[in-house]
Amino acid sequence: MNTIISYIDENKDRYVDELSDFLRMESISSSPQHKDETFTCAKWVETHLRNIGIDHVEFIETKGHPIIYAEWMGAPGKPTVLLYGHYDVQPVDPIDLWTNGPFEPTIRNGDLYARGSTDDKGQVFTHFKSIEAYMKHHGSLPVNLKMIIEGEEEIGSENLQTFVRENKEKLKADIVLISDTAMYAKGVPTICYGLRGLSYFQIDVTGPNRDLHSGSFGGAVQNPAQGLAGMLASLKDKNGKIKIPGFYDDVRKLTKKERDAFAKLPFNEKKYAKTLGVKELFGEKGYSTLERVWARPTFEINGMWSGFTGEGAKTVLPSQAHAKISMRLVPDQDPKKIAVLFKKHIRNISPKNITVTLHEMHGARPALAPIDSLGVSAATEALKKGFGKKPLYQREGGSIPIVVTFQQVLGATPVLLGFGLPTDNPHSPDEHFNLDNFHNGIKTSAYFFDTLADMSK
Amino acid sequence: MNTIISYIDENKDRYVDELSDFLRMESISSSPQHKDETFTCAKWVETHLRNIGIDHVEFIETKGHPIIYAEWMGAPGKPTVLLYGHYDVQPVDPIDLWTNGPFEPTIRNGDLYARGSTDDKGQVFTHFKSIEAYMKHHGSLPVNLKMIIEGEEEIGSENLQTFVRENKEKLKADIVLISDTAMYAKGVPTICYGLRGLSYFQIDVTGPNRDLHSGSFGGAVQNPAQGLAGMLASLKDKNGKIKIPGFYDDVRKLTKKERDAFAKLPFNEKKYAKTLGVKELFGEKGYSTLERVWARPTFEINGMWSGFTGEGAKTVLPSQAHAKISMRLVPDQDPKKIAVLFKKHIRNISPKNITVTLHEMHGARPALAPIDSLGVSAATEALKKGFGKKPLYQREGGSIPIVVTFQQVLGATPVLLGFGLPTDNPHSPDEHFNLDNFHNGIKTSAYFFDTLADMSK
Repeated sequence: MNTIISYIDENKDRYVDELSDFLRMESISSSPQHKDETFTCAKWVETHLRNIGIDHVEFIETKGHPIIYAEWMGAPGKPTVLLYGHYDVQPVDPIDLWTNGPFEPTIRNGDLYARGSTDDKGQVFTHFKSIEAYMKHHGSLPVNLKMIIEGEEEIGSENLQTFVRENKEKLKADIVLISDTAMYAKGVPTICYGLRGLSYFQIDVTGPNRDLHSGSFGGAVQNPAQGLAGMLASLKDKNGKIKIPGFYDDVRKLTKKERDAFAKLPFNEKKYAKTLGVKELFGEKGYSTLERVWARPTFEINGMWSGFTGEGAKTVLPSQAHAKISMRLVPDQDPKKIAVLFKKHIRNISPKNITVTLHEMHGARPALAPIDSLGVSAATEALKKGFGKKPLYQREGGSIPIVVTFQQVLGATPVLLGFGLPTDNPHSPDEHFNLDNFHNGIKTSAYFFDTLADMSK
Repeated sequence: MNTIISYIDENKDRYVDELSDFLRMESISSSPQHKDETFTCAKWVETHLRNIGIDHVEFIETKGHPIIYAEWMGAPGKPTVLLYGHYDVQPVDPIDLWTNGPFEPTIRNGDLYARGSTDDKGQVFTHFKSIEAYMKHHGSLPVNLKMIIEGEEEIGSENLQTFVRENKEKLKADIVLISDTAMYAKGVPTICYGLRGLSYFQIDVTGPNRDLHSGSFGGAVQNPAQGLAGMLASLKDKNGKIKIPGFYDDVRKLTKKERDAFAKLPFNEKKYAKTLGVKELFGEKGYSTLERVWARPTFEINGMWSGFTGEGAKTVLPSQAHAKISMRLVPDQDPKKIAVLFKKHIRNISPKNITVTLHEMHGARPALAPIDSLGVSAATEALKKGFGKKPLYQREGGSIPIVVTFQQVLGATPVLLGFGLPTDNPHSPDEHFNLDNFHNGIKTSAYFFDTLADMSK
């Protein structure tokens, strides 16, 4: 192991140069104008994997951007790790707010600035470089490895979903390793062990068959905006509790251990509220802010519109009112069941004097990685060595649908080993990646493969 | 009188052509892009009044759109009628729902379709044409006449209010004649003796300082759309009663006579509901539909918007939420007092975790015209002759703020002689005006001036 770590230390600067090459490619998956450059980036990944010593690399074309699949299966009897990452990046607007060009990687104060630096090129590259260290030194890895590096994460991973479902046997793995999340804070190595799911709806409410004069008709019919406001208001009580019958039935309670762990985290409510510009925080009574965001389900209005929304005053009684709403789900809530409960409840509370229709737009299962699983145990040890500190376990409020697919279709246990920081500005101008985290991340990756092999003896 | 009526009959088609010219001008007072065309329309009115034989016409520029003032004072000892109307029109959105272009007047089944046809160009034009008949035939009118045709009725008549207050003596009149309301039904000539007032607000709600990711932040802060929905929902109870403390204090109760008269009107709830496309009517419990619309105050959401309103799904927790609301008021509610009560109540119910600000946009007093006044008596006779049927007396749910100003500042008794129909779609796509009503309206106008002169002998 020492020789591997020395190699990583010795090649530190070269690794940054290579990552910069990776970052210079404008692989914006959502932009048709960047299709060729995204393709070029995929080719670069393919070549790079061969260069670091992986012979079996497949360049898989899809209806969208290519998937790079690779494998090294030379460790019989050892666990198989499926490494997942993505080479595509978010758009760069508003471009004016970038200090340097988004595709001109620049180092300032120990951070490497460029679109994709933390999400996800820089993070996935930590594993490429630890693999290189093993292959150059030993010509082998301590575990079996499969890799999926896709180009459509920022646009929904639709083609990857299909690819995974159609290649169950080929992709079979014990552990899926993903570095696409953030550490809790600088100097605080973190393992993310839970993700929330999602159930997204549009509610369409129709009252009269046209917009009416609110003078001539006000008082005669139900106003659909009033009806919608009434329904939306009734879905949550004053304590932030969601009032859909059965909604909480399958929510897995936080263990005492989890609550204690969350409570010990350095979290300044006042500072957090100030950053968001609110006078006070708010949410489900009886839970801390971190508990509410990471481990409790939510109901949010994402959008709402009705009637006259222009300048000035128009005395209209609207014909229609609409809302987009979504519920974040936590283990063991099932988005399909929640959707059924939601639809039933809305049917029950819909006033008879308006017409309410629902459009189900999205569903994603929540995910939970057992903390005592082999993968998470190995990751814990690896972080201790890589960052010199015991990691903490946190959950994450967002959803990464492909994680659930890997879990369900392949039976792989997720390990979410994030080397980003909450201040890295992913999806925003001046995205950056801390170079200490990059370097320690490479070492952590090397320790992870080693520890995992050891633990499975 | 017979020659006057013959003249009106003979010129029937030309009158429609001229009205069509009037309707082609896009005098949308609320639209800055239509400022020039609104000005052109005002000029057209000025010229037209001169053409029909009124020499004294003033083109009065204001901070907004011009006011056309005209007078003919050649009947000493006879009452003075102040004719009021407006040449401005409502916006045309949603434009897709118009069968023909809103400014391409088209006749279908005896109705003239165009924006402004019933509100108010077509209605005010009935009086222009009866005046023309008198002036062409006799060179005089049976009564003294003053006219105010303004261009800001649809945006609050602010500059006219000032003009009236600053020209009390000049505008002094016994009766103010307005045709800007609707008949009870086709073939049922109607005099409107009561109008509702108005109090209009915009509510702006701010939560976090930017749109947040609903995954990463959902559960941490109050959603401003949820806060707004909660406030709006709480303003009315299940029985349609408005829950602003003190709101009903000054509401004048309907007399037994009025309730009996309303109850005797042919009104088919089912048919009315069908016309509006609703499964059932709804409003304040304990009052009939006509009572609710004509003589009870209301609270309506006129518009509402927040967050993501485009196609598809975006998981945003909005930074802001907005609503436009208005309350229709009845005698003896005072819009100033109601505005104070509303502001106080909103302050009381605003959640502490969001910022709520109110913008008062409009206020208008309710109005009531004595049924036994000279003007209403003359109008009753005129309608009998013009439409061949005894009129009925009704109230109207809308507001014409300037009526109250005329009543209060000039001491003029209002006569609301509406030739529109409830099905005319004012403020909506496919606005139209019935051409029989247009023709009979012109004759009624002629009879009104004649009868009024007679009655005041």
